[in-house]
Amino acid sequence: MTPDLGPDLGRRDLLLAAAAATVGAPLAAQTRRAPAGGGGGRKLGYAIVGLGNYGLNVIIPCFADCEHSRLVAVVSGDPAKAARVAAEHKLGPNAVYSYADYDRIRDNPDIDIVYVCLPNSMHAEYTIRAFRAGKHVLCEKPMAVSVRECEAMIAAGRAANRRLMIGYRCHFEPFNLEARRIVRAGEVGRVRYVRSEHGFVMRDPSVWRLKRALSGGGSLMDIGIYALQAARYMTGEEPVSVSAVERTDRSDPRFREVEDQIAWDMAFPSGAIAGCHSMYSANQNRVFLAGSEGRVELEPATRYDGNRMWTGKDGREKPVAPPSGPGRNQFAGQLDHMARCALSGAEPIVSGEEGLRDMRIIEAIYRSAREGRTVKLA
Amino acid sequence: MTPDLGPDLGRRDLLLAAAAATVGAPLAAQTRRAPAGGGGGRKLGYAIVGLGNYGLNVIIPCFADCEHSRLVAVVSGDPAKAARVAAEHKLGPNAVYSYADYDRIRDNPDIDIVYVCLPNSMHAEYTIRAFRAGKHVLCEKPMAVSVRECEAMIAAGRAANRRLMIGYRCHFEPFNLEARRIVRAGEVGRVRYVRSEHGFVMRDPSVWRLKRALSGGGSLMDIGIYALQAARYMTGEEPVSVSAVERTDRSDPRFREVEDQIAWDMAFPSGAIAGCHSMYSANQNRVFLAGSEGRVELEPATRYDGNRMWTGKDGREKPVAPPSGPGRNQFAGQLDHMARCALSGAEPIVSGEEGLRDMRIIEAIYRSAREGRTVKLA
Repeated sequence: MTPDLGPDLGRRDLLLAAAAATVGAPLAAQTRRAPAGGGGGRKLGYAIVGLGNYGLNVIIPCFADCEHSRLVAVVSGDPAKAARVAAEHKLGPNAVYSYADYDRIRDNPDIDIVYVCLPNSMHAEYTIRAFRAGKHVLCEKPMAVSVRECEAMIAAGRAANRRLMIGYRCHFEPFNLEARRIVRAGEVGRVRYVRSEHGFVMRDPSVWRLKRALSGGGSLMDIGIYALQAARYMTGEEPVSVSAVERTDRSDPRFREVEDQIAWDMAFPSGAIAGCHSMYSANQNRVFLAGSEGRVELEPATRYDGNRMWTGKDGREKPVAPPSGPGRNQFAGQLDHMARCALSGAEPIVSGEEGLRDMRIIEAIYRSAREGRTVKLA
Repeated sequence: MTPDLGPDLGRRDLLLAAAAATVGAPLAAQTRRAPAGGGGGRKLGYAIVGLGNYGLNVIIPCFADCEHSRLVAVVSGDPAKAARVAAEHKLGPNAVYSYADYDRIRDNPDIDIVYVCLPNSMHAEYTIRAFRAGKHVLCEKPMAVSVRECEAMIAAGRAANRRLMIGYRCHFEPFNLEARRIVRAGEVGRVRYVRSEHGFVMRDPSVWRLKRALSGGGSLMDIGIYALQAARYMTGEEPVSVSAVERTDRSDPRFREVEDQIAWDMAFPSGAIAGCHSMYSANQNRVFLAGSEGRVELEPATRYDGNRMWTGKDGREKPVAPPSGPGRNQFAGQLDHMARCALSGAEPIVSGEEGLRDMRIIEAIYRSAREGRTVKLA
């Protein structure tokens, strides 16, 4: 399937078009084979692409907690910062790349996996280029800025026979995993309702997240996607329809290009409803599930740390103890999961298809809010 | 304005039509005059209409906490129960009425106020008949089962120059009042988002609340109306649009006639959003408000007792102490407020117009869910 391309076909569009064209290619070459860099007990090497706060201060320190993953390279537009990070982490020669010479990672056998920590609109391009260089890819959420880009990324991974994983860290967060276990075990009865609010006060009007060309959208793409994910992984179902309301003060300098708050309700096949909320103008971080016989609640639910959880019939009667020992670092968990998948050839539990599913729903949420109607999902 | 009446004009329709016809009547006769029964320090007399659980076990015991209100009569279809209640509360002669001889309350000067505790579809008729008997009316929520009925009730009250109050007890509930004070004082910054879920597990499929002819609707009419009210009194605003999703298992014997769960989002003029949820299949009772600088939360929020409240930046950091002393009994508060309004001629803070506003929104919520589109409100 070749996408409908406009006349101004830039480098990014060409990449997407070429990748998408491979969707229909024979799958024979895409069967599992020996992972890049060989197997064995060695730690797989990661290149971190993008040394913003998340890549630099959140992800890189977590390699210390990893069993199967190590930092071997950085890709940055800031040579001084990249050199400093390389020195701090005692990276070898050829460990620093600029965006211009990014494609040279192909020649570095120490790099098994590329972790794309760039602004959203760059995810597709840097993922596809990584696949072309023969690397596996862990890409931050949101997977990209459109369904079309997600499809191209998946196609590129298949063509290269490399794994694609999306950085949905909550699938490795112990409280969220325990909440899902409780629900799946039937401990709260029949699932009736999920509620998730995610938001924070965005104070700096200059950040890339508020520029549509870089972010692809506002709070929904950034923080609201956690609420969407939670509704899906807590119920274990896919929504059949979505109904959304957006409210944004366009005179606020922060919100000239992207939405502030958006609320949406999703209907699920079982009869459950999820009510979700996303915003850039108040702090919220909660996941709540009501079953016919009880409830489970997380607040904060999806933070980097400090999450808390309760079960109950009528309130937060029973606190759930925080996890301890291995597995409590959600970031290390996701880095090592990707490494294990790269080694074994297995599909990551949060694959490109998972990111694509969210992006289809996100597009439906925006459409519902724009058109003032319920949008059905296939 | 005469409503459009069908050919099968029963007693109830006749009452509504006659009452509605007075909406356009001159208002000269509706100015304040001496309240029924005169003023002074005496307690005003209430007739409780309907000795179901709410009237019998919730309201009647609260007269003991009232300063301005006393029980003087009961109206019931069960003569033995009515006689027992009259004896227990040492009511005078002529204190017991059946539905058939209800209109005779006109001749009982001890009755100042009628409290209508009947199934929803009977609210309009018994309110209008009370006005015709020269009594003030406190009517349980929901005010009625349609906008048309609400308008007729208001018209009947005006024609009789009697006060109409709706039993929105949360306007007298100390935690809810404190939450509103905090928000109005700007203590949480700019209001961005209100969330309210209200529901319980309806276990008995035989109750009148599940029969459309008596209830007029399902969980929304009964318990979801608390979420709607909370969104309005917490923001102090009227919604400009509503977008709703309903999910009901029609094969469940409880839900053959009315909805189980319905979720709706409302947009407010300030840019705030309210996300509300109503259900008959899980226990929920919460009101949450997020401002730009903090939050306030109540859970349970609107129960008869045992409500709790917190303020915070990021969670439930600061519990708000439960109230003590006079004013802590929301039921006595509402009974005495109505008595004071009847004495002074003042409009109750939760007037018929307030009930009508909710009913207009409820009709819009149902329409939005049915038609799968956002419904604008005038």
